[in-house]
Amino acid sequence: MSSTINRTALPTFAHIQEAAARIAPYAVLTPVLRNANLNALTGADLYFKCENLQRGGAFKFRGACNAVWSMEDALAVNGVVTHSSGNHGNALAMAAATRGIPAHVVVPDGAVRTKVEAIERAGAILHRCEATQAAREAKAEEVQRATGAELVHPFADTRVMAGQGTAVLEVLQQSGGLDAVITPVGGGGLMAGTAIAAHGALPGLDVHGAEPAGADDAARSLAQGSRVGPFVPHTICDGLRTLIGETNFEALRMHRVQVTTVSDEEVIAAMKLLWNELKIVVETSSATVFAAVLKRPELFKGKRVGLILTGGNVDIDALPW
Amino acid sequence: MSSTINRTALPTFAHIQEAAARIAPYAVLTPVLRNANLNALTGADLYFKCENLQRGGAFKFRGACNAVWSMEDALAVNGVVTHSSGNHGNALAMAAATRGIPAHVVVPDGAVRTKVEAIERAGAILHRCEATQAAREAKAEEVQRATGAELVHPFADTRVMAGQGTAVLEVLQQSGGLDAVITPVGGGGLMAGTAIAAHGALPGLDVHGAEPAGADDAARSLAQGSRVGPFVPHTICDGLRTLIGETNFEALRMHRVQVTTVSDEEVIAAMKLLWNELKIVVETSSATVFAAVLKRPELFKGKRVGLILTGGNVDIDALPW
Repeated sequence: MSSTINRTALPTFAHIQEAAARIAPYAVLTPVLRNANLNALTGADLYFKCENLQRGGAFKFRGACNAVWSMEDALAVNGVVTHSSGNHGNALAMAAATRGIPAHVVVPDGAVRTKVEAIERAGAILHRCEATQAAREAKAEEVQRATGAELVHPFADTRVMAGQGTAVLEVLQQSGGLDAVITPVGGGGLMAGTAIAAHGALPGLDVHGAEPAGADDAARSLAQGSRVGPFVPHTICDGLRTLIGETNFEALRMHRVQVTTVSDEEVIAAMKLLWNELKIVVETSSATVFAAVLKRPELFKGKRVGLILTGGNVDIDALPW
Repeated sequence: MSSTINRTALPTFAHIQEAAARIAPYAVLTPVLRNANLNALTGADLYFKCENLQRGGAFKFRGACNAVWSMEDALAVNGVVTHSSGNHGNALAMAAATRGIPAHVVVPDGAVRTKVEAIERAGAILHRCEATQAAREAKAEEVQRATGAELVHPFADTRVMAGQGTAVLEVLQQSGGLDAVITPVGGGGLMAGTAIAAHGALPGLDVHGAEPAGADDAARSLAQGSRVGPFVPHTICDGLRTLIGETNFEALRMHRVQVTTVSDEEVIAAMKLLWNELKIVVETSSATVFAAVLKRPELFKGKRVGLILTGGNVDIDALPW
């Protein structure tokens, strides 16, 4: 049944509003922080949306939760499956637990042990496979066939994109209004959801993305007008090493998203400033957005800017400074 | 005029309620975080009140702000003075700035450079002196005589204690009700204000304190029934090395505060758990409260517990692990 639906189509604004209502009982309404020193430093009025304080320490819970609760009972009972062993795998396991359905997570050999343990603690059933993209996809298909579980892709999934778009709706309300918003760009689930949600709520809003220079596929794709091919990422931002999805890229183009690229050094400097001033733990990927505002202040000066701080899953025994 | 008032008397519950209204336009209504993993670990329902996200990164702004805005115009115009070069000095400088009055901060030789710079950035006038208690007090008196500035003591001050008591009123409201509350004990400004506020709002609430074993003067004072004398502290918790104030101690006794002592190793372990699970930066002193809950779970099991996380002013280049 589910095979007849285009699972990668972009969500509409209405889908995102529905997602907001659907996940509200389970997701944290994360706080928005402001800071006089960082405002003075940038000349902008900054609203930091703390998705590092979301369940599981990342915004990923929003999309996973929307996917899990979008399914009809007859399908949901078979559970969900993904082949992400990072924040999305953990988020899907937690989301499935809120509905009491099985979550299958395909874990490639060599995945970070602490992340795998967290996924297991969240109640997922683990399926080991070799560390290649082909092996992961094959294993996920095998699990689907054997269990009837529904595949929930980390970003090329309408329900996931809709869920990720709910964060910007919240910060628009919490701030009382914004002129611009900025999120990191990886696979583009958050970026696409944010662009659609932001323009659905406020058509004139500036929508920005931030990308590590060592994984600047979205910036290069926008520059050449079509999506670039697979590349070898080279960045400290482990959450942003993915090639942007095809429909995700379409959303960026349609919504005239401006992407700023930042170096790993700029990311680390921004990350330290956020830790020192906001007193929160944010991961490298999250710090790209503030690094972008610091790098191109002329884009943001005098504006009310929402920055989505996407996660806080850092190894505090191995900080990058 | 101010010399006729007993500045070290304990505040009443009404004073604390007035303080809450007085500081509301300037202080951050800090968020309360919850965490399923930490609840499971302790068997309690934990509400973390994030004063590390307060202005200046510490609860100290509450007391300083209440003191600054309690003063009559004719007195306030002369400004305020303190001889604390830590979080209180910084908080007083920021509070004075909200009223546009001078803040004089006496800085002993050898004070932490980054802290002194922050105080200067906040707009304070610095006064250098030797690093002895006598020199600090003498310099503060000299500034008082020369300028007419009002002394605002970091904890032995009615207005300061009243301000610090406002945090527990907030978490009581934000949580929808608590069975117990716990704060760190240093000079006892926060502990006294919290005990008075908690019992004013809910007479049956359990009020707990947490103290490093290497600065356990409050625990020893409660055990022997009278305040112990000066001691040489030996703890990593730099905010809690102070001897508890005389009236502050009276508040602990009157309110039957139970103080749990924790080792530096227990503090560091608790601090890492808070960073990893809550994704926030808390300083060693703050972590004592969670370390105490981990150490004596029988006191908290099955209860709704408010934990005041007092601050996040940490040198992230020199973490204690």
